[in-house]
Amino acid sequence: MPIKFRKAEVVCTGSELLSSRVNLYIPAFAQRLIKAGFRIRREHCVGDDLKDIAKTVACALRNADLVIVCGGLGPTFDDVTRQAVAKVLGRKLVYSDYAERTLRANYNLTEMLPNMKDQCYIIAGAALADNANGTAFGLLLTEGRKMIVLLPGPSHEWEPMFDACILDGIKKFFKVKEGMVRSLTLKIAGLREVQTENLLKPVNKRFRDAVYTILAGPNLAEFSFTVGGKSPGEVAAKLARIEKACRKILGKNIYGTGGDTLGSVTGRLLLQKGKTVALAESCTGGLAADLITDVPGSSEYFMGGAVVYSNAAKEKLLGVKRATLLKYGAVSKECAIEMAANCRKFFKTDYAVAITGIAGPSGGTAKNPVGLVHFAVAAPGRTVHFEKNFRGPRPVVKSCAANFALDALRRTVK
Amino acid sequence: MPIKFRKAEVVCTGSELLSSRVNLYIPAFAQRLIKAGFRIRREHCVGDDLKDIAKTVACALRNADLVIVCGGLGPTFDDVTRQAVAKVLGRKLVYSDYAERTLRANYNLTEMLPNMKDQCYIIAGAALADNANGTAFGLLLTEGRKMIVLLPGPSHEWEPMFDACILDGIKKFFKVKEGMVRSLTLKIAGLREVQTENLLKPVNKRFRDAVYTILAGPNLAEFSFTVGGKSPGEVAAKLARIEKACRKILGKNIYGTGGDTLGSVTGRLLLQKGKTVALAESCTGGLAADLITDVPGSSEYFMGGAVVYSNAAKEKLLGVKRATLLKYGAVSKECAIEMAANCRKFFKTDYAVAITGIAGPSGGTAKNPVGLVHFAVAAPGRTVHFEKNFRGPRPVVKSCAANFALDALRRTVK
Repeated sequence: MPIKFRKAEVVCTGSELLSSRVNLYIPAFAQRLIKAGFRIRREHCVGDDLKDIAKTVACALRNADLVIVCGGLGPTFDDVTRQAVAKVLGRKLVYSDYAERTLRANYNLTEMLPNMKDQCYIIAGAALADNANGTAFGLLLTEGRKMIVLLPGPSHEWEPMFDACILDGIKKFFKVKEGMVRSLTLKIAGLREVQTENLLKPVNKRFRDAVYTILAGPNLAEFSFTVGGKSPGEVAAKLARIEKACRKILGKNIYGTGGDTLGSVTGRLLLQKGKTVALAESCTGGLAADLITDVPGSSEYFMGGAVVYSNAAKEKLLGVKRATLLKYGAVSKECAIEMAANCRKFFKTDYAVAITGIAGPSGGTAKNPVGLVHFAVAAPGRTVHFEKNFRGPRPVVKSCAANFALDALRRTVK
Repeated sequence: MPIKFRKAEVVCTGSELLSSRVNLYIPAFAQRLIKAGFRIRREHCVGDDLKDIAKTVACALRNADLVIVCGGLGPTFDDVTRQAVAKVLGRKLVYSDYAERTLRANYNLTEMLPNMKDQCYIIAGAALADNANGTAFGLLLTEGRKMIVLLPGPSHEWEPMFDACILDGIKKFFKVKEGMVRSLTLKIAGLREVQTENLLKPVNKRFRDAVYTILAGPNLAEFSFTVGGKSPGEVAAKLARIEKACRKILGKNIYGTGGDTLGSVTGRLLLQKGKTVALAESCTGGLAADLITDVPGSSEYFMGGAVVYSNAAKEKLLGVKRATLLKYGAVSKECAIEMAANCRKFFKTDYAVAITGIAGPSGGTAKNPVGLVHFAVAAPGRTVHFEKNFRGPRPVVKSCAANFALDALRRTVK
């Protein structure tokens, strides 16, 4: 049975989205909405202009069952989304005592500031969604058989809000039965998007009634599939069959599912085994440590890192021998192995990972081109070397190398 | 005279833009279009669906003077943009002999392949733009006083095409003169979006004929203004007056313009003065070093960093006294100062910056809440301490702290 999706349209507001910034939110919305049986049919970006927002929301509302409007809920003059949507629906803005009580409590206010007061005006008839990370409330509105959701612009505000209550509100209104449409996202490391796609073609052919998407990242890929059915049991069984087929093909390249990151998965492994790690970074310049320490509680297993950007730092901080640097150079198997082994000893950890390479755009030679990176993972009793060539501008090479390092650590700890 | 921008809308096609991919093209279009006096009023993404594309193009054409449709010109079944636009304009697709001659010449074809033949069907009345990097032609269409431009999807195809002839075609049709509209973006550190806005209100009031936007970042803000006039000289003078007024108010909080980053600006200062720097990071976990090393050539002045996530690492790597850690704790003024001073000595640099705080979500106490960060900048002859409280989830606290550290370094080097 082919899945029947309801239609959603997403309107993102903010003049910066029409000049200097890119709207990054659609994949995040798509992943969440598919769980409620919605596919995004159109996305629109509009400036902070009341008339343009109203016009766009009205048009989206004519075409879709669900309209999500993201941004423009702040207290400054260019935040006009509430006014625009109120105009479209022919409703008024009303003062919410609940909003005032909540803001007073959250921010320990003895008196309301003018900015905070602005945030208490909501569209008549809206249900409020609390914001754990800001002053703007989310608003859920229904109009006939359709729904409009207003969300604050920053992702660290709307994402937790969406997951805590908005998705449930949508499911309830549209009477989406639990488990009739489900998605799974497999997180993949060590394969490029095209490789992943080619490897998984047999899965696409075998399970034709699922919807597939592939998302590319630096040395990473995400493969999502969505299935529907007549009962939660049928859906769960379909999902499990597809997952099994993917795992058979991709094996250890699958590092996790859903919200897992290489940092969180590797951290969990270290924690489970009671092991610790340290990093020795050259060309990634601290990025690998940054990814590891994005995980709450990482101080339990991450002891520290040495960002050794100069040869002097490599010698002094990590005790890389001058002879090694002179004979083989800083970007070499030999240097990577010394960095990792010495880093492990220095930090007294179970594991250490070293990264040394050429991030570019300059500094490349015929022998050592831009994008060449040497890695070493030091573990109890052995130190393993890897060599990779990444393509792309400097930040991409850095990201690919940092992800490769974390993935090499994951495979070693496992 | 208030600037009169003409209105442009951009429609990007491709189902992947509604699920797994992000539309990266708007800044590139905006930069090009402003030179012809156009602002993008709305952006739309639509799937590869003839009806959805037609509906969206028709709507854009009602609202804008210029509509750019990007993508869906290829020869495969899901490329339906030409058909959709032809439908909107009530025109036919006609075979172009010029297109066939051009493709034959470019690809050395003795006979036309079916795929190539498809590419020769163009919308009646269209002017063709050659594609140096693909088989799809760009199409320029006029309809009354409005213009529609169809471009191939890949940026390495449309960007050279746009710069070679599309922009000229637009300027010619709309009779645009050079240099009549210009923008400037000021990059601001140490002020939040709302503070920036309040401080700059007098500028907004004094220069009413400019268009302003404010963009928030972690402990950063961007302020952009765009002006127009009757001559390039008038425009340049207006722009200079507004910049001067902003600089008078914001002073050293302005760290750069346009594409500058805190990393690039601070790096440029260090390079100019022939000075070097090292980092000692605790709660930012390598992020500050990552930002510094995102700049090509940063190895000239960045010697390295110590990511000291444990007390043991703080002692061993940076020689922080155990007594300091016991008496004041790792998150303290005393620890930050020792970290910076010792880091400077260890790496033998002119400057060193230390960051120690509580990134959260756990680990906070009444005395040391989540978001509290101590900084120290060690310079020749002095070490200065700063203390800040940031709000937000872990990655936001990390970003705010890393940016604050780079900004403190910038102000010290300056």
